[in-house]
Amino acid sequence: MSKYTFLVLMIFVSFLAYSQTDQEQIDKIYKTSLTNGKSYEWLDYLSNQIGGRLSGSLNAEKAVQWGKEELDKLGLDKVWLQPVMVPKWVRGNPEYAYIETTPGNTTPVNICALGGSMATPFGGLKANLVEVNGIDELKALGENQVKGKIVFYNRPMDEELINTFQSYGGCVDQRYSGALEAAKLGALGVIVRSMNLRLDDFPHTGSMTYDDLPLDKRIPAAAISTNHAELLSNMLRLDKSIQFYFSQSCRQLKDVQSYNVIGEITGSEFPNEYIVVGGHLDSWDLGDGAHDDGAGIVQSMDVLRLLKESGVTPKRSIRVVLFMNEENGLRGAKKYAEEAKRKGENHVFALESDSGGFTPRGFSFDCSDANFSQVLGWKPLFKPYLIHYFEKGGSGADVGPLKKDNNVVAGLRPDSQRYFDYHHAANDTFDAVNKRELELGAATMTSLVYLYDKYGVNPITSTEKLKD
Amino acid sequence: MSKYTFLVLMIFVSFLAYSQTDQEQIDKIYKTSLTNGKSYEWLDYLSNQIGGRLSGSLNAEKAVQWGKEELDKLGLDKVWLQPVMVPKWVRGNPEYAYIETTPGNTTPVNICALGGSMATPFGGLKANLVEVNGIDELKALGENQVKGKIVFYNRPMDEELINTFQSYGGCVDQRYSGALEAAKLGALGVIVRSMNLRLDDFPHTGSMTYDDLPLDKRIPAAAISTNHAELLSNMLRLDKSIQFYFSQSCRQLKDVQSYNVIGEITGSEFPNEYIVVGGHLDSWDLGDGAHDDGAGIVQSMDVLRLLKESGVTPKRSIRVVLFMNEENGLRGAKKYAEEAKRKGENHVFALESDSGGFTPRGFSFDCSDANFSQVLGWKPLFKPYLIHYFEKGGSGADVGPLKKDNNVVAGLRPDSQRYFDYHHAANDTFDAVNKRELELGAATMTSLVYLYDKYGVNPITSTEKLKD
Repeated sequence: MSKYTFLVLMIFVSFLAYSQTDQEQIDKIYKTSLTNGKSYEWLDYLSNQIGGRLSGSLNAEKAVQWGKEELDKLGLDKVWLQPVMVPKWVRGNPEYAYIETTPGNTTPVNICALGGSMATPFGGLKANLVEVNGIDELKALGENQVKGKIVFYNRPMDEELINTFQSYGGCVDQRYSGALEAAKLGALGVIVRSMNLRLDDFPHTGSMTYDDLPLDKRIPAAAISTNHAELLSNMLRLDKSIQFYFSQSCRQLKDVQSYNVIGEITGSEFPNEYIVVGGHLDSWDLGDGAHDDGAGIVQSMDVLRLLKESGVTPKRSIRVVLFMNEENGLRGAKKYAEEAKRKGENHVFALESDSGGFTPRGFSFDCSDANFSQVLGWKPLFKPYLIHYFEKGGSGADVGPLKKDNNVVAGLRPDSQRYFDYHHAANDTFDAVNKRELELGAATMTSLVYLYDKYGVNPITSTEKLKD
Repeated sequence: MSKYTFLVLMIFVSFLAYSQTDQEQIDKIYKTSLTNGKSYEWLDYLSNQIGGRLSGSLNAEKAVQWGKEELDKLGLDKVWLQPVMVPKWVRGNPEYAYIETTPGNTTPVNICALGGSMATPFGGLKANLVEVNGIDELKALGENQVKGKIVFYNRPMDEELINTFQSYGGCVDQRYSGALEAAKLGALGVIVRSMNLRLDDFPHTGSMTYDDLPLDKRIPAAAISTNHAELLSNMLRLDKSIQFYFSQSCRQLKDVQSYNVIGEITGSEFPNEYIVVGGHLDSWDLGDGAHDDGAGIVQSMDVLRLLKESGVTPKRSIRVVLFMNEENGLRGAKKYAEEAKRKGENHVFALESDSGGFTPRGFSFDCSDANFSQVLGWKPLFKPYLIHYFEKGGSGADVGPLKKDNNVVAGLRPDSQRYFDYHHAANDTFDAVNKRELELGAATMTSLVYLYDKYGVNPITSTEKLKD
């Protein structure tokens, strides 16, 4: 193609980025979601009848069966389970912890084991503490000041950032690698301030790693509520000799069989071009996982249903994937991408919802500048629905492995202010989700899928696609 | 001014709409609000230590004293109370209502008297019902089918609209004028479906009018929860002969003395140009008025404090006004505007926050096209804070009376999806407000006030101002 032809084509494309019909179709999608959506009813069932569904648990398998049954009812072209082996970690008995100022003088505090942590020794673990504001400070202290102690990571999430996921990203190394680094310096255990911008009483769990640390070097790790992190820090300031006790009986069992749940509307014109929409079906065990990621699951399921209800016959194959094991292994996402590659399936667009069921603000896109131009051309279509955020950036953990040079992967971006109030904690429950906010998210996702289905991903840089 | 000069000036203005310093200043304002804001602490006190503060109540007067004391602490140039007489309506004993299918076979339902309503006759009121979807349908039925009955207005808020205030606007005539119109046709009482998009158990109160209907023609009116409105409607569909009983002992007392609370930072260069920021100090009596409008009160108070904390010395006089009696009379707003006019005070900009303490999305402006162009020029400054909504439209009930040809009045526009879950109901309480969302609103307001203070309102069309 000559430079001139390309230029003309680009101008042509930018003037015909969409039509009046598209606006009408999108309006229909939003109205259908708000008056005849299924996402809220589905979330009610998933949250209140099944509940927390940690990978490998009975509830996770119930969720798999439920997902398949509900997709079966939608009259899709194909619905199937994709087998994947997942880790199985169990919490065991409720955790128990206290601060001991003098022998027998104790103050109970709220903790929960981090996902993947070891148990404490039989009878629990009691030791002096060393408070650090992160891994760098820990390393600077060195073995002398850490050995034999419980390390207390207490760097709070940065309140100044507008995007709370950015605050999370700047803080979560303490939770993920804190135990690993502390163990290397001879610590006996780790207590991490919960990843929560709010001061409240809920401890927030989440994944952690021991990397290749030998089994006998691994130390137990737990999260403490933000209120109790403040309390502990204040008490330590007054008296460094106070002791901390905690007891947890969690353990890692053998991997077990589980599944991704997949549904497909096969494309009428380009069946070999795949558009994926999805979230993760597993959750942590403390709440019922309504925001993380029940919301993303039911929104993704409703995308296919809303397309049908709004009278859209997709040209490309649209798949919903309920990914298993995002929280502690990402095995489902890896399996799906591996199988897609093995079968040579051409995934042109993939969209994830895994940032809570709050009012949608827009999307972040992982794609080339040229592909980003295309989607920016559609932005005006979303203005009536107050969708304004179209930015380049990350997509999501589950669709990330589908990224290629010539496709687009994206994430729904809801309002993030309240997300970490609930994330991985016992209060991530159905009542914390607003019906309309959830439905607006489903409609926003459906509208973008509608546009990608209609127009395809342009420009397509792979040579095989230029034939179309 | 020639057309050419005007054009050059416009281009000049649009290129110099703001400077890098402005971005830095606004960034400082946001960071200060998120890490050192007072709005949340103030709201805690106003909601939990004072509580619901209906005009004329003891709590309303406590709120006046509290507001003055807190403003006094800020070291403003002036703080004063502006006297205003306000209506005093009292709810009396808790309302009680039930549906009676056959004599003695009753189902209790949740109602609350509408603000300003009459009491039911001693012993309560029991009658058959006529369900209508609005005033037009009522009028079409005519006296024959309405006389001696209780009118049940059951038109729900329109779920299809994105802006929930628009849904409210399309529905609230039933609550405001429903009793008046029903009384004219000989109805005995009125039950109105709560103005709530959600199905739940809370009845939502709000203002109503009898206009100049003679006292003996006035009939009692109450709101019913959306769940019970659905129940009642379903029961009526099965059996039109069911009866409805309700009892309420509310009444209107004599007007009492109250106050607007006003604080001012006097301008260093243009002290006679006033910028007002405000919300309403009164609330309904059912919850503690945290969203409506505790949020607007504490955000407005924090605007003056955040300007000081961020090192801004205003050129113009900045006033915070805690308006009294927005909910059932608007007496405070009328009094303030009347006094401003009498004193010839030049109010160049007024900003209201009365749409809940949710994540701010932007502003609506009531102003000329030229004035709107000016503010659009500042929009990019707000992008880092995800503030995207700059539209012409309404401002707010309390600043509305300050509108002149040559000034700008505006309203903060937070996310509206959850607002009517809480509006005028017992669940409008402090715990429903998120600290960061509230603080982002305060910062957003402060930033706009900062810009209007720095640049003034341009173009100024009044001849007296062209001298500056």
